[in-house]
Amino acid sequence: MLEVMPSPAPQVDDLGDVTAVVPAGGVGTRLWPLSRAAEPKFLHDLTGEGRSLLQTTVDRLEPLVGDRVMVVTGARHAAAVREQLPGVQPQNVLVEPAPRDSMPAIGLAAAVLERRDPDAVLASFAADHVVGDLDVFADRVRQAARAARTGALVTLGITPTYPATGFGYVRLGDLAGVAGAPDARRAAAFVEKPDPRTAEEFLDSGDHLWNAGMFVVRAGVLLDLLAEHHPEMTRILRQVAAHPTSIHELWGSLTRISIDHALAEPAARAGRVVVVPAPFAWDDVGDFASLATLLADDQDDDGLVVLGERRLVVNEGSTGLVAARGGRTVVTLGVDDVVVVDTPDALLVTTRERCQDVRGVVATLQRLGREDLT
Amino acid sequence: MLEVMPSPAPQVDDLGDVTAVVPAGGVGTRLWPLSRAAEPKFLHDLTGEGRSLLQTTVDRLEPLVGDRVMVVTGARHAAAVREQLPGVQPQNVLVEPAPRDSMPAIGLAAAVLERRDPDAVLASFAADHVVGDLDVFADRVRQAARAARTGALVTLGITPTYPATGFGYVRLGDLAGVAGAPDARRAAAFVEKPDPRTAEEFLDSGDHLWNAGMFVVRAGVLLDLLAEHHPEMTRILRQVAAHPTSIHELWGSLTRISIDHALAEPAARAGRVVVVPAPFAWDDVGDFASLATLLADDQDDDGLVVLGERRLVVNEGSTGLVAARGGRTVVTLGVDDVVVVDTPDALLVTTRERCQDVRGVVATLQRLGREDLT
Repeated sequence: MLEVMPSPAPQVDDLGDVTAVVPAGGVGTRLWPLSRAAEPKFLHDLTGEGRSLLQTTVDRLEPLVGDRVMVVTGARHAAAVREQLPGVQPQNVLVEPAPRDSMPAIGLAAAVLERRDPDAVLASFAADHVVGDLDVFADRVRQAARAARTGALVTLGITPTYPATGFGYVRLGDLAGVAGAPDARRAAAFVEKPDPRTAEEFLDSGDHLWNAGMFVVRAGVLLDLLAEHHPEMTRILRQVAAHPTSIHELWGSLTRISIDHALAEPAARAGRVVVVPAPFAWDDVGDFASLATLLADDQDDDGLVVLGERRLVVNEGSTGLVAARGGRTVVTLGVDDVVVVDTPDALLVTTRERCQDVRGVVATLQRLGREDLT
Repeated sequence: MLEVMPSPAPQVDDLGDVTAVVPAGGVGTRLWPLSRAAEPKFLHDLTGEGRSLLQTTVDRLEPLVGDRVMVVTGARHAAAVREQLPGVQPQNVLVEPAPRDSMPAIGLAAAVLERRDPDAVLASFAADHVVGDLDVFADRVRQAARAARTGALVTLGITPTYPATGFGYVRLGDLAGVAGAPDARRAAAFVEKPDPRTAEEFLDSGDHLWNAGMFVVRAGVLLDLLAEHHPEMTRILRQVAAHPTSIHELWGSLTRISIDHALAEPAARAGRVVVVPAPFAWDDVGDFASLATLLADDQDDDGLVVLGERRLVVNEGSTGLVAARGGRTVVTLGVDDVVVVDTPDALLVTTRERCQDVRGVVATLQRLGREDLT
């Protein structure tokens, strides 16, 4: 299991110009029925630590950047985000009128920061991932900040631990030669999710890292890079930062696009991206199989992981994962690699192998007119 | 699937001295969490026909015996039984103060009937079995009644359809030579539940039938046979029939014993048992695997049987059985031979293969102090 307890707080010292930006937007469809549009993955305590993934994300960042934490979230979730994060300043919760994927969200944060301080560095981290080895994390964020101050778009690339086909990759180039960032390399390219064979080759090669969506960059640099391919979007983001109420009028016209496609890939092709290898434990908690692996240390003698109230679960000889969030007693008898997710209005029974296909179940429910369950 | 819709009513004619006795006592532990001590199997509509197993049992008997139907049940269930069977006369619902297995229950009915008519014939059928081919059923009950009038203890033996290890068997002897009962044979012996290899031999031999607990016998003959090995029990039963209020004082002293052990086995050894082969469809609905087989015609295209509200179940590529009795949506995704039983306070997830072991789950829950769920 990843160690997600906070380590002793590292020094805040040389990250004084860095603001952590946390886009909190994804629903986490493959974690249905725990995760719903109305209560998405990042608001849940999926690791049983008593803190939501969003709270754990901020807990991990505050020792590095103090109160310079900014969250970008949708109108539907703003109240819940503020409630979960009382320590985040109200002006640092940016609210999108409608979801437009990660580029507009992070771009808006960049535009707001740029106005406050033209030299501000932003470091963006998803709200629903799990990170371990916090000393290593802190060191790599510092190296990334140093590289960002040279004007690069910096990404932290996770050292792969298995031949994942569910993530994109960053291919390592030469050492970047940044003072104080001995591990920083040029990013040769961003690579799309590979097929299984290519993923094996990536793992063996040692020069492909997982793209975990962690970017560190000067706010102004981000916007100037974005302007090269998306000048209209950049103009709107800067205008919204200057006149916040204009967001309601302007936001709807923005293109839905990820920061990978809009910014990172073209910048890498232009030789503007630096990657800092990040050999810390990381998990995107993408589906229940991933969650079961993450919590494997918590399994019972049989090999069943229980999420939620353990007293509600009676297991005889089953393996897999049970999430008991429906208040009722759940009995599993002799089922291998099962995934049972019980909630008050919906129950999912599947296998570890089929967890990726939970997304399709949600689509089916929507087709059946059961949006109330999604 | 068994055909359980009533056929056109057969003639009542030559069963004018027969009373159907329905012991309604077993909990059906292997059908937990549908079946509970407080709401046992026989009170449930398990076949989705809109009638409980008890009601279906009486529906099947009324065309044969009219209103001469007697039910023996526990104090805890008497109100529910009366409510489900408004057509059964109040004096024909016998209430046991405490469960004592099938012999005292059927013996009490015999004693009550003997007082009403010394020549009365009783025909006992469990409250929680399913029977098809009602014309054949009626014919074999008539043959059994004719044999019973000769003074024999008559049982209907079900023609096996697979090498069952969960039932006892009756071994066929010579033809009994009873007028009007051409199929009646001497019963050579009652045989305990066999191991799988023996069950195969029984099936191949053709001379072993399932003991389905269906007995037809003159009330007085039953009591006289019982008196040979259990004189004190017989005395108490006759005394309770004569002075009904004495049941509260006397019932507790009765031995818990099945009619097989107390009566049928010794009577067979004494050459007093006749068996009428019964080639009709029959199922004891013993566990969820049995129920899934019984309802196989109702399965969806994938091969999933749904019990309860079909609109609540969304299946993608799973086989097995889902009982949706919790009011919530149940999604099954890519699970083979699964059994999911959802109720408001308890959920069971197991496999067809492990259905027999549900009994052990109930024992575990009791050990854990969760009698409220059993």
